[in-house]
Amino acid sequence: MIQPNMATMLVFITTDVAISAPMLRASLKQAVSATFNRLSVDHDTSTSDSIMVLASGAAGNRGITTRGKAFNAFTKALTEVCGELAYQVVKDGEGATKVFRVRISGAKSAKDADKVGYAITGSPLVKTAVHGGDPNWGRLAMAVGRSGAAVNPAKLTISIGGHTVFNRGVNADAPLDPLQAHMKGSEILFEIDLGLGRHAAEWLGCDLSREYITINADYMT
Amino acid sequence: MIQPNMATMLVFITTDVAISAPMLRASLKQAVSATFNRLSVDHDTSTSDSIMVLASGAAGNRGITTRGKAFNAFTKALTEVCGELAYQVVKDGEGATKVFRVRISGAKSAKDADKVGYAITGSPLVKTAVHGGDPNWGRLAMAVGRSGAAVNPAKLTISIGGHTVFNRGVNADAPLDPLQAHMKGSEILFEIDLGLGRHAAEWLGCDLSREYITINADYMT
Repeated sequence: MIQPNMATMLVFITTDVAISAPMLRASLKQAVSATFNRLSVDHDTSTSDSIMVLASGAAGNRGITTRGKAFNAFTKALTEVCGELAYQVVKDGEGATKVFRVRISGAKSAKDADKVGYAITGSPLVKTAVHGGDPNWGRLAMAVGRSGAAVNPAKLTISIGGHTVFNRGVNADAPLDPLQAHMKGSEILFEIDLGLGRHAAEWLGCDLSREYITINADYMT
Repeated sequence: MIQPNMATMLVFITTDVAISAPMLRASLKQAVSATFNRLSVDHDTSTSDSIMVLASGAAGNRGITTRGKAFNAFTKALTEVCGELAYQVVKDGEGATKVFRVRISGAKSAKDADKVGYAITGSPLVKTAVHGGDPNWGRLAMAVGRSGAAVNPAKLTISIGGHTVFNRGVNADAPLDPLQAHMKGSEILFEIDLGLGRHAAEWLGCDLSREYITINADYMT
């Protein structure tokens, strides 16, 4: 779960914008689905994870009561706030020393894009490779393969830190030095292009360290 | 994946029974679905995991060509062999020090029973609790809740080592000593009764230790 130990994530956001309750709810749902619902520390959950947004209306804008330009602008800002908070959650994950971002594109459906993000951010082999700084694209390909999404290896392209390592089914023989340099950093970027459609998603995960085991195994309830 | 490092599981079984190829295939499928497909070391997979069974017919029995008594007897024996091998695989999991068995009952569907087994054997919080010997039924309930199976907490019962810890939605206030004694052992039993139907399944998992991280993070491909 989320740091600290046995934590529950409670998020409170306030805004002075004037917006109707149904529109505020729709905006939050959209923002959360692209941020908090696309992160993983360990795939485990707390029963109490909650997010709330309160709008006072003090800004005095013409109230947002329908979808449209103002709604989109507000939702964009709300998504940015949620994205920043989601990033902090992952960075603060139990025992985490690195954050990795997974950009999925070319998925056949939105669901497929999320399946790939979910599988990669939850894979212990990917998470330990990130911890060890190993540009192990075989583990990424493995997680893509077992994600349940429609996958054609011959159309799959994988990049690490902007360097293509697997190009439409073929080992791209990328030079190892820049890959290892990237993997030594604290922010890792994986790009997965499934080459099958136009759907995309971005997920956030963290590495799996000995500290995670210490935090979660070495105390008694 | 499965020990040793980067391993692929290749299983070869031979028998002298006389049995037709379609019946042998059907028997193996049944045996594997109840054993190898209900175990998890870390939910990650190898592309090459394979199982083969070869039958020579040297036993001279009346050949098995249809389902029936002889088919069932052979499948039972084959399932026992696969079950024993599957157990060894989990016991030999990367860094594993304990094996836990999850007996799911009362599921609304066979798929639901497997969803619960899959979620519990893959949960890092359950796996670290097992590693630390902590009878933490809250983590079991969490994994049941996030499994995707139909769950009604008021009908859910959880036992550890034969001791009921959560009884149809209520903390059973089980004495801690026998629970801790059981969790200190090397074979742990979790029983999950969903109380919603007649479907059951049995899954095998192992604990998550620092050694797992060492094996999978501390080498370079």
